[in-house]
Parts: sequence; C-alpha cells; structure tokens
Amino acid sequence: MRSLLLSRRDLDFLLYEWLDVETLTKRQRYAEHSRDTFDAALELSEQVATKHFAPHRKLSDAHEPQFDGERVTIIDEVKAALDVLAETGIIAAGMDGEVGGMQLPSVVAQACFMWFHAANVGTAAYPFLTIANANLLLAHGSPEQIDTFVRPMLEGRFFGTMCLSEPQAGSSLTDVTTRAEPRDDGTYRLFGNKMWISGGEHDLSENIVHLVLAKIPGGPPGVKGISLFIVPKVLVEPDGSPGERNDVALAGLNHKMGYRGTVNTLLNFGEGRATPGGEPGAVGYLVGEPHQGLAYMFHMMNEARVGVGAGATALGYAGYLHALDYARTRPQGRPVAAKDPAAPQVPIIAHADVKRMLLASKSYVEGGLALILYCGRLLDEERTADDPARRERARVLLEVLTPIAKSWPSQWCLVANDLAIQVHGGYGYTREYDVEQLYRDNRLNAIHEGTHGIHGLDLLGRKVVMDGGVGLTLLREEIGSCVERATAAGGEAAEHAAQLRSAVDRVAAVTRTLWSVDDVEATLANASIYLEAVGHVVVAWLWLEQLLAAGERTGDFYDGKRAAARFFFRYELPRTGPALTLLEGVDRTTLDMRDGWF
Amino acid sequence: MRSLLLSRRDLDFLLYEWLDVETLTKRQRYAEHSRDTFDAALELSEQVATKHFAPHRKLSDAHEPQFDGERVTIIDEVKAALDVLAETGIIAAGMDGEVGGMQLPSVVAQACFMWFHAANVGTAAYPFLTIANANLLLAHGSPEQIDTFVRPMLEGRFFGTMCLSEPQAGSSLTDVTTRAEPRDDGTYRLFGNKMWISGGEHDLSENIVHLVLAKIPGGPPGVKGISLFIVPKVLVEPDGSPGERNDVALAGLNHKMGYRGTVNTLLNFGEGRATPGGEPGAVGYLVGEPHQGLAYMFHMMNEARVGVGAGATALGYAGYLHALDYARTRPQGRPVAAKDPAAPQVPIIAHADVKRMLLASKSYVEGGLALILYCGRLLDEERTADDPARRERARVLLEVLTPIAKSWPSQWCLVANDLAIQVHGGYGYTREYDVEQLYRDNRLNAIHEGTHGIHGLDLLGRKVVMDGGVGLTLLREEIGSCVERATAAGGEAAEHAAQLRSAVDRVAAVTRTLWSVDDVEATLANASIYLEAVGHVVVAWLWLEQLLAAGERTGDFYDGKRAAARFFFRYELPRTGPALTLLEGVDRTTLDMRDGWF
Repeated sequence: MRSLLLSRRDLDFLLYEWLDVETLTKRQRYAEHSRDTFDAALELSEQVATKHFAPHRKLSDAHEPQFDGERVTIIDEVKAALDVLAETGIIAAGMDGEVGGMQLPSVVAQACFMWFHAANVGTAAYPFLTIANANLLLAHGSPEQIDTFVRPMLEGRFFGTMCLSEPQAGSSLTDVTTRAEPRDDGTYRLFGNKMWISGGEHDLSENIVHLVLAKIPGGPPGVKGISLFIVPKVLVEPDGSPGERNDVALAGLNHKMGYRGTVNTLLNFGEGRATPGGEPGAVGYLVGEPHQGLAYMFHMMNEARVGVGAGATALGYAGYLHALDYARTRPQGRPVAAKDPAAPQVPIIAHADVKRMLLASKSYVEGGLALILYCGRLLDEERTADDPARRERARVLLEVLTPIAKSWPSQWCLVANDLAIQVHGGYGYTREYDVEQLYRDNRLNAIHEGTHGIHGLDLLGRKVVMDGGVGLTLLREEIGSCVERATAAGGEAAEHAAQLRSAVDRVAAVTRTLWSVDDVEATLANASIYLEAVGHVVVAWLWLEQLLAAGERTGDFYDGKRAAARFFFRYELPRTGPALTLLEGVDRTTLDMRDGWF
Repeated sequence: MRSLLLSRRDLDFLLYEWLDVETLTKRQRYAEHSRDTFDAALELSEQVATKHFAPHRKLSDAHEPQFDGERVTIIDEVKAALDVLAETGIIAAGMDGEVGGMQLPSVVAQACFMWFHAANVGTAAYPFLTIANANLLLAHGSPEQIDTFVRPMLEGRFFGTMCLSEPQAGSSLTDVTTRAEPRDDGTYRLFGNKMWISGGEHDLSENIVHLVLAKIPGGPPGVKGISLFIVPKVLVEPDGSPGERNDVALAGLNHKMGYRGTVNTLLNFGEGRATPGGEPGAVGYLVGEPHQGLAYMFHMMNEARVGVGAGATALGYAGYLHALDYARTRPQGRPVAAKDPAAPQVPIIAHADVKRMLLASKSYVEGGLALILYCGRLLDEERTADDPARRERARVLLEVLTPIAKSWPSQWCLVANDLAIQVHGGYGYTREYDVEQLYRDNRLNAIHEGTHGIHGLDLLGRKVVMDGGVGLTLLREEIGSCVERATAAGGEAAEHAAQLRSAVDRVAAVTRTLWSVDDVEATLANASIYLEAVGHVVVAWLWLEQLLAAGERTGDFYDGKRAAARFFFRYELPRTGPALTLLEGVDRTTLDMRDGWF
C-alpha cells in the first residue's frame, strides 16, 4: 500500500536523481555512509513514523495535554512513541559521531525527520525541539554543558525547549524583560515569564533543558543586551544524577486550534515556588559570552525556520496523499458530457475540478519538498564543500532562501491541506477523517518562528540587500544556470525557462525600484507580497530543475512530474505578474491607511 | 462600544445610502413599513444576537451535541437563546403578515439574520433551516400542510430540516435512493438513509419537520424522478396535538471541524424502530406534484445559497472586527524606521503589514456584505417591482449572481478569518480567543449547499449561457451603467471604471472563447477559476458602486470606503488577469492529467 504520509519515490527522485546526494559520500564527513545507509535511515524513519507516530495522531488531538494544577498529563502513546524513536538514534541523525550521532548529511536527516512531521507533528515536536536545542549547545556550549545536557538529550533521556517569547515580547524580542542576575559562583539567577513554550512541562523525560533568553542587568539596551542561559527543570548533580528542583513553574497551558499533542506552556522563572540552594531565582548557566544570546539563537533559528517549512511541507504532503486516496475510491457523479443518469458513478478523481485541486496540491507539496531538500543540500555544502568559496556561496544562498523555505510551505502546503478538505467534501469537514486536523496542525506554521510578515521584512529588508545584494545576485546566478540548461534542452523546458527568466528579471528590477525610494517605510510596506512573489519564482525554478532531472525518462512518475511542472508554470507562476506590478508602483495604499478609517 | 459582530454603520450605508431601501416602503407589500420599522428590526436583531447568541458561541463549540444512544443532549444556552428569538418574531421577518410574518423586505430581513450568523452560527442554524423549510412549504405546500407544519415553525414550536444527501449521493442528487411508497390514503411510506442532516434530532422543539427528497417507485430515472415529502418526527393529530412517533431514527452524529453547535446527523427512515399505524415505513406527505421535488428544492436552494454567502460574510466580518480590535490594543514592536529600542512599543495596527491584512479583510467582508444585500434587493425587486420587465430582469440577475453570492464570500470572507488569526499571532491560534473558531465555523461554507466546484459548473455551464446568454448580458449592462456613472464622476472613480470595463470585456470574451470550443469537458475544465475571476470582477463593481455612493461625503467612514475600494482595485482585481489569460487558452492541463500520474 502506498503511504499516506509522504512519497518515498519522490524522496528518492529528489535526493538521488536531482540533488546527487550519493556524491556526498565522497566527502570525509560522510565517508562511512553510502546510499544503503541513507536508505536504511529513510526506511527506518518511515516505519517508526507509520507504526508508532501516526496511529495516535487523532487520539492526542482529541485528548490534549491537561494540567490539573500539579501535573501535566499526556496520553501514554506519546511517551511510547518517543521511547521507540530514542532507541533508533534518529534524534542524532545529523550530529557528529563523537557525540553519538549518525553523522548523516543534513539533507538526508531532514528527509528522515519529515516522516515524523507527516505522521504526527504533535508528538514529533518534542524530539525536534530537543534536536534544535542540542545543536545550539553543540555549537556554542562549553564541553561541560555538552556533557551534562546534550548527551542525555541525544539519548532521549532529557528533552529541550526554546524560551524566547514573553507575554509582552513575541515578535519583538528586543522587549524581553526576563533578567539574569550573576552570582559569585559564575551561575545566574533568572526572574521572568516566558510564553508559548512548547514542551515546557511534562513527565515524558527525566529532565527538561530550557534555553532561555534573558538580560543581564547593566547590559546594552535592546537586542544587544540579550544573553542565553541553560535553565534545567531539575538541577543536575556533578555525577549526572538529578538534584534539586529548579524554580521553573508552570503558570498555565495554551489550548490551541491544532498541534494539540504538543503541550504549550506559560512558564514562570524565579517566582519562589522552589528556592534551589535556599536562594530565590531559577538557576541558569550562561551559554557562550554575555550579550550574544540573540546571535546564538539565530544560528539555531535559521535551522528551525527551515524545519518549520519542512513540517509545513510534510503536513501538506500527508493531506494531499489522503485526498488522492479518497478521490480514487469515492464514487460521485458522472462526467459533465455524460447523458445517462443510470450509468454508474465515477470516482471523483475523474472530475476535472478534483484533478485541478489534486494537481495544484501536488505542485505545492512536491515543490515544497524540493525547496526544503535543496536547503538541506545547501547546508551540507556550507559545512563540507572542499572549496571555501563554495561553502560561502552556499551559506549566502541559504540565508536568502531561509525566509522563503519557512514561509512558502507554510502558505502553500497549507493550501494543499485546505484543498484536501475540499476534495473530501462534507466528510473532510468531519473529525472522522484526517484532513481537517492536518489543516489545523499546519495553520501554526505561518505564525511561529517568525510570522509571515516578519519573514517578508527579513527577505526584502535584509537578505536581498545584505553585503551589496550578493544574496539576490547568487540566487539569480543559480536560477540563470537552470534557465540556460532548460533552454538548451528545448521543448517545454525551454518555454518554461523563458517565462522564468522574465519573472526573475522582474524580481531584480522590482527590488532595485523598491530600494531606490528614499523612504524605508514605503520600501517595506508590501514586503509580504514581495516574499510571496519571490517564493513563487523560486519554486517555479525548482520545478524546472525537477523537469530537467526527469529528462527524457518515461513512466507515470516522470509524466506526473512533467504535468505538475506544467501546472506550476501555467497556473501558479503567472500569479506573480500582478504582485510584481503592484510592487513596481511602490504602492502606498496600506501605508497611508489610517486607524480611524477602519 | 463598537460591536465585534457586524458594523451597523456599514449596514446603514449599504441599505440607505446605496440601495435606497427606504423607497421600498412606497410599494404596497411594504406600505406599513418605514425606516423606523426597518431600524427597529435591525436594532432588535443586534441586541438579541449580542446578548443571547454570542455569549455561548465558545461554550457550544467546546461542548458539542452528544448522543448517548437514546437522546441528543445540547447545552441549555441554545434553547434559551432560541426561545428569546422565537419571542421576537424575527424568524418570520420576511414572511407574509397573513401567516404571522413581519413582511419586511428581503434585504432588511437578510441584514437582520446576519447578526445571528455573526454571533453564533451553531445556534442560528436551527431557525435558519426552519425558515428555509417554511419558505418552501409556503410556496409549494397545501393550505393544510401550511396550517399543520408552517405555523408552528413560525411560532418557534417546530423546527425544520432539509434531507437531501445520502451516503452515496452528496453532490450527485440524481443518485438518491430513498424510496416513497404510496398508500391508499394518499400518504406515503419512506425507506432510506439521509446524511449530513443539520438539526436532524434534538429536544429543542416540540417536533421536527423533515423535508425529504425521495423517489416514488416507477417514476422517471435520475433527477426527474425525485419527489419531495414532509416527514415529521412526531405525527400530528388533526387538532395539532402530538401523535405517534414516526419511524425516523437517528443513526449517528457527525463531529465536525467547526459549526459544532449545530447537531449534524445521519437519519434512517423506515428502519422499523417505530411502526406508525402498525405499518413499516416513515409516514410522509407529498409536497406539490410527484417528481417535481428537485424543482421545489431548487427554489429554496437559491435562497439557501445566498444565505450561505450571508453566513460566510457574517463570520468573516466578525473575524475582521475581532482582528481590528486586537490590532488597536496589542502593543508590539516599533516602526521599521525607528532607531531607539527603548521607545515604547506601538499598537500593531501601526505596522504596514497588519494594515494590509486588515484592509484586505475590510475589502472582503464589506464587499461580501454589499454582494449579499444587493442580492436581497434583487429578490425584493423580483417580487415587488411594478414593472414585470423589471421583475424578470431582477430574477435573471439573481440567477446569475447566486453561485457568486454563495461562493465568493465562502472563499474570501474565509480569508478574512484566516487573516484574523494571523493578525492575532500566537494568541489567534489559541481557543482562548475567538478567531480560530470563526475560521473553523466558516470553513463549512465552501462545502455545503453545493461545493465551490459545483458552483463553478453552475455559473459557466448554465447561468451565463442560459436563454441565449441573457444572464451575462444583463450583468454587463448593470456593470456598464456603473462604469458610465463612475467615468462621469471623474478622478479615482473614473480610473477604477476603466479598469473594471476592461475586466468585464475580458470576461465576456473569455466566455465566448470557452463556449466556442466544441468540447464541453474542455469548456468546463477550469470552471472554478472562471467562478473566482467573475466573482472578483463582480465585487470590484460593487466596490465602485460603494465609492459612488460615498460621493464627496467627508469623514472617516467615507475615507475608509474610498481606501478599501482603492485596495480592491489595486491589490485584488488585478489577480483576475492571469486567471482570464489561462481561461482564454482553454487550458487542458488538468483535463489531461491521468490518475496514474499522481
């Protein structure tokens, strides 16, 4: 039976037929790997996700974590699944062998992780937050911190969180007010409230390692005064055994539209519920240097942002496959040209509008997957390419693509989830089927790790203009190379190439125009629309790449790729036309809108 | 305090400053009415909706109807609200005085009803289904049927349902298999299963009047053999008192993504749970003539479809007003040009991207409201204009606008609900706030009363080509008249007019092109995209109408109308460009897509 989560065939195509991931095994870091070990990790991920994560997706949606004032209760299936996952070692798929990791390429690790997102984001969030936390500490923590906190996380004994937001400081981290007071022994005591903390309290693991942004009194104002701290739920004795309870208290749970399996908390630090060492405040350990917290966090956040896009893609992909399965098996109606009302009903996939919805979804989710894996491949290039210039090029490209990799799937793979409901009709609107939950789960992705609007500002306000605009230049070079290859290939690829070249040229021109006005508010007023337009151009490019990778190969799979590429170029890329025209005019309609006029 | 449900100011503008509803009082049917009585009905609706419907919206979402195998339990607040509503007489707002109605114009009645949709669709669905049921029986039932069933419905003692779909016959009503066997006494006995029946079982009323589509054995095949029956839950004695229990049995409840307050059921007719008169089968009474059931139902369905659009608009409107309220009070971040991180945070409405989301939402929900009220006004014209030619003209225009009035708000006012979540950020994703429920509630509207795809086929396949294309011709005339007035007005209105004229001309050309190919499958392959494009053109026209109605008047309200009109013409109408280009090419990408290629 075909999986209803992701398509392994598509993953293989993207990894091996397009991104040449096998060639990575020639690099020292991956020398012990082969296509066989990659395949084994993918296979294992699919199996564990299918057998242990997917079956309780609905159950944990209907029975979300509860807080009785004392304990958080989470259905048993979550811990059972996480225990199985810990056994597999997949949590450390991308990490160094020396810390117990599998040292797989990022692109393969990302593909592995997507099975868990597709199966059950609510449960998958616990290990993925832990991975992000561990990666940050591996990059910036001290050897002692890595021994004390990271190793148990990679073994699945400790889980991790990211504590950034506060009730008054969501998108605006400069307004963080949690304070960290230094103590003579080099530790700190933290006081403050953190909001939206996923995995902030539970009994799923022996300990919870909170990474907390806070300000050391007397530091610089704004984001330059933010430092990063490890604040464990339970203090760890020098021998690794659990010590005193730290002063981290659960103040309440957020009950969400979706993603309900992941406990989401409001945490109070240093409110006096515990007084470790007889002193007020939550004990914290500074990570790296003071006042560098945001820089460290951004290092992790870039990865987390691509991870959000990966999750959005996986959820959209699962929705698409569910809709496809339903459309093939649900008889309803007859072809529009049919005359005989007594003829048997046809499966709804025979109706053009249902095919349109499915083909649109296919173009979104397979386009999203290509985008995410391309970013994973760039990360591998950044880390392991022999030539430092290639590493730097990959780094810059990844910087410019990150807001798109985060936002595009959060928008368009969510549309796939919406279309999956629509394909199911009334059934899709019931909780008996899966697709409405997949929609609700995915709706978070345009909000967390920076809203859509924030990423628009990031792309137009920073990424395309940083270092003299090198980001956009490199992106144009990459797309230009694809356009050249497609033009040489001739036929439909060449037609698409001409369309893509024109769109890319317009993006470049619009970018110049927007930055030629001497009014940053006007430049950035429609940054979200810029983000959406550039996103569509980038995904059109990746569809052209897929078309070229399919080449002349025959068979349903390749014909499907060709049809989806055609769909994207005919139905989707043209949407950027009016958007770019609007941007070209540096439209001030929204900027000039006054509060009183609403 | 400004209402968070709808804007009375906007309703007044549309009803009195644009649609000249006051002039209706010169017609005989409305001669006893005045602006005062219209205002009183609107005021009463707002008050009852605000005080009795809105407060339990969340509660009935969290505690949906439960079936224990014996009874359906619904939270007490629902019945309490419906009892208050019954007292007001609003249920019969549009109906004749002789049956106890208020005999208000449809456009005013529609505006009244929207307050209840905005406040709580889950509870409002019971009376609105009852109204649709009663209207159908008033048009096609016998005097005895009206006395027995309609009068108690208008008094709020009986509720009504519509039983069309079956598990194997959703969009495809031709496949209905419920059968109605005639008995010697002129009654029928029904046997079959009906799916998706809202209000199908509950204790909220003394009786439930099911209107059921069924086939009389020996009738013509397909839709031409469908008849319509009244099947009461409890038989009614000649003196109006309750008699035997009829054989209508609840087979189960559907648990939905939203709209949870409305019990949605699977009903079995004639399964032998009761045997009224000692005989098997559910007792049914034929409405009108045999085999005319679908025609009668369509009479009601056109109204119900505009009603769905009204509900979608109301839910989107409420979402928009909630988002606006939040954006004005939530401080977060600073202007993009600000330098000082210690400056106080600004309300998020100060950010251009938040203004963009709110302005887009305003253009959708106020555009949707204009569309719905315009349709209500057409219904009044169809019913009461002195000149028969005017009545016919209104009828045709309403026919062609109905699929748009149903679908456009279901799509775009839902986008307003989505944007309302986005404006709220993480808070909007929690169930503590209202906006995620409003989204979930509204998501149904693109599915029920004909899916989006069905309405695309209705518009392109029937409405614009019926009677030699008179529907599209009249629509072009109406829009053309507006374009002329706007051109004469000059300034921005004239600019918009030129843009609108060009869009309408393209729609006409595309329609001709699509019907010039001798392949109905190709003509209709992209009918949904046609529906969406024409919908945007129609709403652009109604924005231009609003701009003209605002005229030179000064003040925030009118400036807001001008800004929203500008937004729609700059940001929204241009979206139709690529869509019309695609349609012009009679694109076959989706049609040619094969099952195996997915």
